[in-house]
Amino acid sequence: MSAARSREVQLAARPIGEPKLSDFKLVERELPPIGDGEVLVQNIVMSVDPYMRGRMNDVKSYVPPFALNETLQGGAIGRVEESRNPAFKPGDIVQNGLGWRTRFISNGAGLGVVDVSKAGLTTYLGVLGGTGFSAYVGLLDLGQPKAGETVFVSAAAGAVGCVAGQIARIKGCRVVGSAGSDVKVRFLTSELGFDAAINYRVEALDDALGAACPEGIDVYFDNVGGDHLQAALNHMNVNGRIAACGMISQYNNTEAVPGPNNLAAIVRQRLTIRGFIVSDHFARHDAFVADMSGWLRDGKMKNPETVVDGIENAAEAFIGLLRGENLGKMLVRLSSDQAGA
Amino acid sequence: MSAARSREVQLAARPIGEPKLSDFKLVERELPPIGDGEVLVQNIVMSVDPYMRGRMNDVKSYVPPFALNETLQGGAIGRVEESRNPAFKPGDIVQNGLGWRTRFISNGAGLGVVDVSKAGLTTYLGVLGGTGFSAYVGLLDLGQPKAGETVFVSAAAGAVGCVAGQIARIKGCRVVGSAGSDVKVRFLTSELGFDAAINYRVEALDDALGAACPEGIDVYFDNVGGDHLQAALNHMNVNGRIAACGMISQYNNTEAVPGPNNLAAIVRQRLTIRGFIVSDHFARHDAFVADMSGWLRDGKMKNPETVVDGIENAAEAFIGLLRGENLGKMLVRLSSDQAGA
Repeated sequence: MSAARSREVQLAARPIGEPKLSDFKLVERELPPIGDGEVLVQNIVMSVDPYMRGRMNDVKSYVPPFALNETLQGGAIGRVEESRNPAFKPGDIVQNGLGWRTRFISNGAGLGVVDVSKAGLTTYLGVLGGTGFSAYVGLLDLGQPKAGETVFVSAAAGAVGCVAGQIARIKGCRVVGSAGSDVKVRFLTSELGFDAAINYRVEALDDALGAACPEGIDVYFDNVGGDHLQAALNHMNVNGRIAACGMISQYNNTEAVPGPNNLAAIVRQRLTIRGFIVSDHFARHDAFVADMSGWLRDGKMKNPETVVDGIENAAEAFIGLLRGENLGKMLVRLSSDQAGA
Repeated sequence: MSAARSREVQLAARPIGEPKLSDFKLVERELPPIGDGEVLVQNIVMSVDPYMRGRMNDVKSYVPPFALNETLQGGAIGRVEESRNPAFKPGDIVQNGLGWRTRFISNGAGLGVVDVSKAGLTTYLGVLGGTGFSAYVGLLDLGQPKAGETVFVSAAAGAVGCVAGQIARIKGCRVVGSAGSDVKVRFLTSELGFDAAINYRVEALDDALGAACPEGIDVYFDNVGGDHLQAALNHMNVNGRIAACGMISQYNNTEAVPGPNNLAAIVRQRLTIRGFIVSDHFARHDAFVADMSGWLRDGKMKNPETVVDGIENAAEAFIGLLRGENLGKMLVRLSSDQAGA
């Protein structure tokens, strides 16, 4: 048997501002034979996520920075090709944290076998993965929406935003989203059941938000920060809640950019703003899986995806993600072996 | 008996930026005889508070704006001079919301008889009044400090800040305060038991805060907003809490001023920022009075005051308050009749 090979994306340079293709490099390497207790996995699909931008900077954060000239990491789903570990057999579909590569050898730690009879393979990276869990925890636990309240979701056509908005709709809220194109705006209202959506690139956000939320905003699920947060603050109701999931408007900043000019609303309107990292909320994972599986089964939850083909296009997919070129979850297909997908 | 007269401060013009003396006018008027069920009260002392600045603007907020050419209002303590209301007798000391005037007639609504045998008269405007209650609710309910944690209080030599810092000390926290003069800084550490204090007018706030909080900040009690909030965000620990009590740095703004450039810390550090208005928290008032009375009795709580004499100086006292000229509670003495004070 010929040696297995892996094609991998490494960080060639730390991006300054918006990442460039030259900040990444594709390498190919030969993997050794697997040893006792090890498995060889071929990745089928991987996730690119906004938080990865932060890991490309050399700063302390809640996850360590990526190392230069080493292969990047991230959520992926693969298939076990060879196994010398009794917990796995060839053909098993395994969720793993070793994306950005087509193959890897593992001792099994961090690999979770996925039941593709229950849900589509890519669902485990999307609505049933960290994406959906982030939306669930942020919207329900931090936002605490009540039926009839107005929920505003920024970057609503993004992976997390899509799910947060749909959960809010399921909970009986009026749901308003912002997105960066007319196609996305139409998608939110016609496909995902949003009550209103705003194209923030062409509409004056503050005015449009006021018009879309005639009774004010009770819960703001913030993926964007910056101007979006400022506009939301102008329309928050008394005792409003802001779940701060991400601030994608800030990730490519090369210098500190001043924030909203209306934070006095926090006091005047008695607002609560809470930031969160989903990994802190593991205690809620079982409830999430139960609820989300039910919503999927009942057809209440859609899982939009934008899929880019081939690891050679992964860096471009990531750059596109930061530009908002995705609709729903941004995925990169790493193998044509798509059983279950 | 000659008719009672009242000297009163009215709003002559809505201040633009920092209030000027010409925005206020002192008027004197004759009060009618009291009718059945009414009392005549002579105010002894009144409170000037930062929140009053907001009421001088013609904007919707949690309290209605002051009207032009009408007498201002605010917390005060007075003495019943005449009574035709069985609930009050001449000589009763009554807390009221009709400061900025030396006398008034009331049907008794909103008047509360104060027991000056239990605590000094002005205490009811300070540590036992809305000032102390704001500090109590904000620090304990929103900040939830634990013994050994680091609490940072801005405007710590102000009325609310003094109390918040002392409660944090009583709860076993490391307490750091900021203030605008060396005299205040010394007062915080030598008189109120703060562990460290920073003169933000001469020290680089961010550096000084880092030095004073070597283990980071767990709770930030924010009276200031703006640069103080930005500096605090740079040093907040994971799961830190920010109680937003006021943003005095913003009250005189004539146009919207951009906010902190580091709000991404909210997500990265999983912070909770909560604004509050103390009147929403009435359910906690009994607990507050019990705790605060105990701390006063046991000598654990000091009640620093800056007292300005005479209603003719009330506008100047208020302007001085916004400039930080007070140490502790800013009061205006309206009558030399100080029994119990």
